[in-house]
Amino acid sequence: MPAKGDHEARRADVAAAVWRVLAAEGFGGLTMRAVAAELDASTGMLTHYFTGKDELVRYAHSVAADRTDSRPMLRAEAPGLAALRVALVNVLPTTPENVAMSRVWVSFWDAALGDASLSSAQRERYVRWRERLRVCVVDAQERGELAASDDAEDVAVSAAAFAHGLVVQALFDPQRLPPARQLSLVDDFLAGLRGR
Amino acid sequence: MPAKGDHEARRADVAAAVWRVLAAEGFGGLTMRAVAAELDASTGMLTHYFTGKDELVRYAHSVAADRTDSRPMLRAEAPGLAALRVALVNVLPTTPENVAMSRVWVSFWDAALGDASLSSAQRERYVRWRERLRVCVVDAQERGELAASDDAEDVAVSAAAFAHGLVVQALFDPQRLPPARQLSLVDDFLAGLRGR
Repeated sequence: MPAKGDHEARRADVAAAVWRVLAAEGFGGLTMRAVAAELDASTGMLTHYFTGKDELVRYAHSVAADRTDSRPMLRAEAPGLAALRVALVNVLPTTPENVAMSRVWVSFWDAALGDASLSSAQRERYVRWRERLRVCVVDAQERGELAASDDAEDVAVSAAAFAHGLVVQALFDPQRLPPARQLSLVDDFLAGLRGR
Repeated sequence: MPAKGDHEARRADVAAAVWRVLAAEGFGGLTMRAVAAELDASTGMLTHYFTGKDELVRYAHSVAADRTDSRPMLRAEAPGLAALRVALVNVLPTTPENVAMSRVWVSFWDAALGDASLSSAQRERYVRWRERLRVCVVDAQERGELAASDDAEDVAVSAAAFAHGLVVQALFDPQRLPPARQLSLVDDFLAGLRGR
């Protein structure tokens, strides 16, 4: 029986292998065989960790969420519109790490939309994200940076939508949408929020 | 040997079965076996149409593009901002048919990002879509509906991004984003374009 430390090290290896498969192939390419190959192990060994594909997908989702939530992120220097800007920029594929992360989440949309419990988890994740954006919008309204007459939740949904859609356009067309252009489009979008 | 009419009818059956699999399971669930089951046929029969999964995915992409391009769409009553609004509304999941279509395209993003030639085809599809949006923006600028100082291509990218991201939010959360709210968010977005 392996020592506890070995077991935990092995779990970390498995998580890293799952992430590499996700980053390279997305959820569509996530199989017991692909993860086993990354680990240079047998699929039989993997069954100590996952009884099958379904558990593997759920585990991979938790790996993706942990990686995403713990990645280096920009910090806002002020609440309000500056914080909203940072929150949007943090999801854009402007660095190699963020490209990999974006690629994983776009592929997860497909996996999640076909599975009621994953879909529900993702819906709640986006509810929480929009709530964080809404808090920035309310701060911006209180600071006079955005019109107080706008519905803060609607503005948060629009900002989330704009950022996600920009992720998709930039993943497909990184040449036409390099990081600098992504950032300038975010600034234009925020200018539109100020002006309406 | 079947008569030519039989063969064409069979091709239409295959296309319809591929679409039903896509609408229910997305590209992630698209297999020779699933399409054969929809047709109540053997996978052997299907090899008359596709040599394997790779050809099936490419064929399914063409079925999805044909269905999307030939679906009933709203027509703009005027060029400019009204036409831009209609172009965005036409991609939103506001009807059962558009929900199915949106679901298929979101799932295709995963398939396409993992495959260089599909990715390139999708990039070109979005270049053409953004160009159609850009024409609406230029018309709107000439009609004085949008500021002529904005870069029309940037505005088109933003509009495409906003619409795609709203598709994703609405697919995951149809209760919080029913059709009427999607439309009002589009109107707010367009108001932001006018105001910036």
